[in-house]
Amino acid sequence: MTADDLNRFLDDAFGADRTYVVDDVDESRLLARVRAGAVRLRPGGTISGPTLMGLADGAAYCQILAHIGPVALAVTSSLNITFLRKPQPADVIAEANFLKLGRKLAVVDVRMRSEGCADLVAQAVVTYAIPSSR
Amino acid sequence: MTADDLNRFLDDAFGADRTYVVDDVDESRLLARVRAGAVRLRPGGTISGPTLMGLADGAAYCQILAHIGPVALAVTSSLNITFLRKPQPADVIAEANFLKLGRKLAVVDVRMRSEGCADLVAQAVVTYAIPSSR
Amino acid sequence: MTADDLNRFLDDAFGADRTYVVDDVDESRLLARVRAGAVRLRPGGTISGPTLMGLADGAAYCQILAHIGPVALAVTSSLNITFLRKPQPADVIAEANFLKLGRKLAVVDVRMRSEGCADLVAQAVVTYAIPSSR
Amino acid sequence: MTADDLNRFLDDAFGADRTYVVDDVDESRLLARVRAGAVRLRPGGTISGPTLMGLADGAAYCQILAHIGPVALAVTSSLNITFLRKPQPADVIAEANFLKLGRKLAVVDVRMRSEGCADLVAQAVVTYAIPSSR
Repeated sequence: MTADDLNRFLDDAFGADRTYVVDDVDESRLLARVRAGAVRLRPGGTISGPTLMGLADGAAYCQILAHIGPVALAVTSSLNITFLRKPQPADVIAEANFLKLGRKLAVVDVRMRSEGCADLVAQAVVTYAIPSSR
Repeated sequence: MTADDLNRFLDDAFGADRTYVVDDVDESRLLARVRAGAVRLRPGGTISGPTLMGLADGAAYCQILAHIGPVALAVTSSLNITFLRKPQPADVIAEANFLKLGRKLAVVDVRMRSEGCADLVAQAVVTYAIPSSR
Repeated sequence: MTADDLNRFLDDAFGADRTYVVDDVDESRLLARVRAGAVRLRPGGTISGPTLMGLADGAAYCQILAHIGPVALAVTSSLNITFLRKPQPADVIAEANFLKLGRKLAVVDVRMRSEGCADLVAQAVVTYAIPSSR
Repeated sequence: MTADDLNRFLDDAFGADRTYVVDDVDESRLLARVRAGAVRLRPGGTISGPTLMGLADGAAYCQILAHIGPVALAVTSSLNITFLRKPQPADVIAEANFLKLGRKLAVVDVRMRSEGCADLVAQAVVTYAIPSSR
């Protein structure tokens, strides 16, 4: 699935509930973004912790969909997030990479940065269970 | 702070961004709730993973505020959540208990259940950094 | 399996590699112990972080064995440990409780204290995959 | 500190308690190794989970020492490890990289592979508190 395919799939499955968009996807990694203009910000214009958690979960989910196809039924089994620095008042961009893509389990490393900054805002390890019926 | 104090404080600080309410708080634990009628549900009428993550983060935050007073500046430093069972189509109730309440760091265990069910839907360990200026 | 059964099983499976013993087990929880006299201590006479990680992993493993029988093949899939306080120069006792015991996955909460102290030294959430052939 | 400096420091501080050696360290990453011939192996000749946890903790600790100097007092505050694949009957090599190196806190990503294999055996995120007196 391409970034466009993924965004259409997400629109159909989750509609207005979604706070991120997929920017790009290739063989090894996926980029997703939360637009600072599209979510309620914390005082100071920065993106909130729960929004970053949703971004990490969503980027991992999309990375899995991009490789196994539009299976809506993959479910998060755990998410460990470490908040590293206060975000800048800007979009936050997540990069997702597989630590493992198995038949029953996928584990994804997600690193988040404020757009234009090299330092990490947060890092997450997200584990998804993949339904066996696919 | 009582449950009413906490809900007023949250209304002032976060307004409509908040998806949970505090039900009760005493010396040792805090109860908070996401109302199934107040959030966008997953197909099947269940509460989504990101909403549970926000509940875990919020319940831990309120448990800390209840003990150190209305200091808006405590910030999440990490959140580890394990999803254990599919929620029922019902409210989800979180119970927060301290693993540690130190001067600089608080660590909170949060357990979430669908209302009326004994089994856990999810469990989280949430670490907050407490600003030294309080 | 009783505490004696578990200790005999561990002796056969792991021999001298093991640094903990099972103290007690009942329907809902298991107690295990690292003896301060049986491991290399840190300066100050306290038990090291890696020894506490081994205790958390072992207590979770034994809690699972106690309920599903002597199946040596359960394997740790993740372990999240938070170190909360410096241990006292004493034995450390772990209490393991199930967050979930499913057919394919068990998730165990492990809380560790220096003997005679109420405060927690560390807390861990340990996830084990259970082989389907049992 | 070089790899040789680190190994000498570890010998002095921990002696025979240590199961890993530092292979190499440069500006951005550190490599450490557990020798299959130097630890008690699991049936099948593979390195055990607790030994991998000790390796992750030690590689993170050395990565911090390499950058802040021989301060023995940095203490682990949390370690989250995900076991991804059964190790091969071979040495395991850990690569440690900073997610953050702050004044008070360091967060290190550690990836472990069986020597000669590209796939990850395990991944860990290790957080260390750095004493302010340095």
